[in-house]
Amino acid sequence: MADHEPEYFETSSLIASDMVEGTPVFNRDGEKLGKVLNLMVNKHSGQVEYAVMSFGGFLGIGEDHYPLPWKKLKYVVARHGFVVDIDKAKLDKAPKHEGNPVPIFDAAYSAMITGYYGNGR
Amino acid sequence: MADHEPEYFETSSLIASDMVEGTPVFNRDGEKLGKVLNLMVNKHSGQVEYAVMSFGGFLGIGEDHYPLPWKKLKYVVARHGFVVDIDKAKLDKAPKHEGNPVPIFDAAYSAMITGYYGNGR
Repeated sequence: MADHEPEYFETSSLIASDMVEGTPVFNRDGEKLGKVLNLMVNKHSGQVEYAVMSFGGFLGIGEDHYPLPWKKLKYVVARHGFVVDIDKAKLDKAPKHEGNPVPIFDAAYSAMITGYYGNGR
Repeated sequence: MADHEPEYFETSSLIASDMVEGTPVFNRDGEKLGKVLNLMVNKHSGQVEYAVMSFGGFLGIGEDHYPLPWKKLKYVVARHGFVVDIDKAKLDKAPKHEGNPVPIFDAAYSAMITGYYGNGR
């Protein structure tokens, strides 16, 4: 969860991981979908394979976790959050896992996530 | 800073950003060099361009921040931390910035960091 002044942790090309965590996620209609729990990073390459959006639950219990392709997240300063082009109906049927453990990320899992949301922003 | 059970936020290929943050960094001699403050992620590609290691200071004041290439960080379970192949003499002369703001990350900055530490692990 970001406890820094966000403007210091962002440049034109980079954003800090701890600024991303805890940031709310809205859809294009302005509905809040959840917030970013964390980023899952490929240990070898350093590539962010997906962002985990959490929704629901209380104090971390009963949350649903939605893996979202990084490219879906667009930070919008005016909203103080990310805006994604995903409506609630789409999210209702989206791949999710409840709490822990995280699924094994392999080529098939990656293809499933990308296939569901598509490659676009 | 990680407030989860780490084992739930790691798979064979992925590691969670909030597990990385706050994790101590040791050199090969077992000396603690600092801890990971955060990861700086390319907004467009999702690539982790570098990890920021913080050292010194008190409650965030007076800390030095060292950008480290992601590939330098190797998580060692037995140490409960990252081990990097950087000795203290090397770190003494390493590129750093004190607190905020973060430097502008561009090709020249990237080349400077990679040049200093090299591409190896």
